[in-house]
Amino acid sequence: MKRDKILLAHGSGGELSRELIEEIIYPIFDNNGGQELLDSAFLALEGGRIAMTTDSYVISPLFFPGGDIGKLAACGTINDLAVCGAIPKFLSVGLIIEEGFPVEDFKKILRSLSDTAASAGVLVVTGDTKVVERGSADKIFINTTGIGIVPEEVSLGPTEISVGDLIIISGTVGDHGMAVLCQREGLSLGGQIASDCAPLSDLAELLVSTGGVSCMRDPTRGGVASVLYELARQSKMTMEILNEAVPVHHAVAAGCSMLGLDPLYLANEGKLLIFARPEKESEIMNVLRNHPLGRAGRVIGRVTSRDDSGKVLVETELGAKRILPALEGEHLPRIC
Amino acid sequence: MKRDKILLAHGSGGELSRELIEEIIYPIFDNNGGQELLDSAFLALEGGRIAMTTDSYVISPLFFPGGDIGKLAACGTINDLAVCGAIPKFLSVGLIIEEGFPVEDFKKILRSLSDTAASAGVLVVTGDTKVVERGSADKIFINTTGIGIVPEEVSLGPTEISVGDLIIISGTVGDHGMAVLCQREGLSLGGQIASDCAPLSDLAELLVSTGGVSCMRDPTRGGVASVLYELARQSKMTMEILNEAVPVHHAVAAGCSMLGLDPLYLANEGKLLIFARPEKESEIMNVLRNHPLGRAGRVIGRVTSRDDSGKVLVETELGAKRILPALEGEHLPRIC
Repeated sequence: MKRDKILLAHGSGGELSRELIEEIIYPIFDNNGGQELLDSAFLALEGGRIAMTTDSYVISPLFFPGGDIGKLAACGTINDLAVCGAIPKFLSVGLIIEEGFPVEDFKKILRSLSDTAASAGVLVVTGDTKVVERGSADKIFINTTGIGIVPEEVSLGPTEISVGDLIIISGTVGDHGMAVLCQREGLSLGGQIASDCAPLSDLAELLVSTGGVSCMRDPTRGGVASVLYELARQSKMTMEILNEAVPVHHAVAAGCSMLGLDPLYLANEGKLLIFARPEKESEIMNVLRNHPLGRAGRVIGRVTSRDDSGKVLVETELGAKRILPALEGEHLPRIC
Repeated sequence: MKRDKILLAHGSGGELSRELIEEIIYPIFDNNGGQELLDSAFLALEGGRIAMTTDSYVISPLFFPGGDIGKLAACGTINDLAVCGAIPKFLSVGLIIEEGFPVEDFKKILRSLSDTAASAGVLVVTGDTKVVERGSADKIFINTTGIGIVPEEVSLGPTEISVGDLIIISGTVGDHGMAVLCQREGLSLGGQIASDCAPLSDLAELLVSTGGVSCMRDPTRGGVASVLYELARQSKMTMEILNEAVPVHHAVAAGCSMLGLDPLYLANEGKLLIFARPEKESEIMNVLRNHPLGRAGRVIGRVTSRDDSGKVLVETELGAKRILPALEGEHLPRIC
């Protein structure tokens, strides 16, 4: 392509649209298992249940330690499928680009999206590109919608959570939120903090295959706290978390105490929050310890009783228990 | 909901996100066949081929004669599925909202999306909401991704186009493009021009069931001309269009001559461009004449010969033939 900036006409449906799609976008997605990228894709699926999920990514800045918006757009949607027990198969990609966006950055982002999807065995099968005038969007927004297959025997979800279930996190919490915050504010916390952005489908599949998982979530916006708060309400259970059991990277902990933030509310993009049957604890912890994305996994709490309103108690280092409040307001907009 | 504007915190994943989703979004989609709107949706599909398509909608203005961005976001994706012969079944909805966007407009748009999907028998099954700071997006952008079932016997596409095929348009061209242009520029052309925005899945299914359709498209961005140009290249065929046969609403024609535009390049959002076997002409024209969305349908040309480069000839009123050029540049940004 002769131009180094995206122009409005790249979204016109005309000659420049064709050039952008054929010269830039198609070549990037050619690691796509030979599947042609079509305006509508035809997918061959075995009968049975499929799962569908959608997410738009508006993160700022676009590039951050540990990833970029392209990698995030692949991981986020793959992970949403993975946590409901689906095997992710297909992605669509919808791009909204601000006029003037550098073509080089555009390519970097798409390559990153494509490579991440490929690494998780997921095909990008269809897409769409819109360009809006300068000032009408902030650089680039990406929507990905994912389809996965749900194996017949799999049944996960809030209604499967039982009293006695262990609450397990697959690694340190708050890395993504703190990495983006530091990048955005120009903070240095000694020792780079990188986003944990990663596709969790492989790890999730291994965990589900133990038969001991009742519910899983990837605690993104609003962090572990918001997911627990929501699941307690939906399952009508009381959950107890031991604060000191929650793994936090030392630099993230330092950043949090400096900024007055609680790592439980910071976003993660490569972590699983797992509700597990206690009799399967050792099997599940083995899966985590033997997987590169689960090595720092820990039991952080358990489901203690049924409770119509549903609540989460956090036990502090001193043994006091407080009720975990819902996230009010917005301390970190555009974190994903 | 107590607030009349969308706040950044409505996209936080916390308490205000829950309020927006549970108090505004869920009630609007409750005509949804009882299917709960979930972060990931489980879909029961018969085996066989499914089609998937995605589109982002960035139209400005959001409300225009004949529709709004919500109706458009349902129609556009439903129509993309319909033209490939799929029966549209499920939609996901991804929302990117500018902080400060009026909640009343938000509801109107979602209701319109929901009603349009319901009228076409399509379920909205999953969604996502992001909010960005004031000035980082222009009011609201919507992505919809659609899934449909492709009946086994259906095979449509550029490779099915043959010499002799008739080229048929299901009604007047350029209505959507001209309606949005007039609204945007404050032009009045005497007699309101309304967008043709409509879901075409029902009409498309009837047409396909004649067995006489080789390829269909909905000529949106770039209009009938851009679709013909693309299909001529892909099918390696020469196509001839008779300019005076193309139905154009008189007010659209007037607007075009005033503004120096060609209606063949203006966007449509409720029209089918059909390639049909000549022996099925009467059957297909009957389907069109008996359907509210096809009454003004006409044969506008035919496929005349095989040609490695593929081109479109337009015969003018005086009998001269010119080659239809590709759309260069962008005369109408954000038309969908």
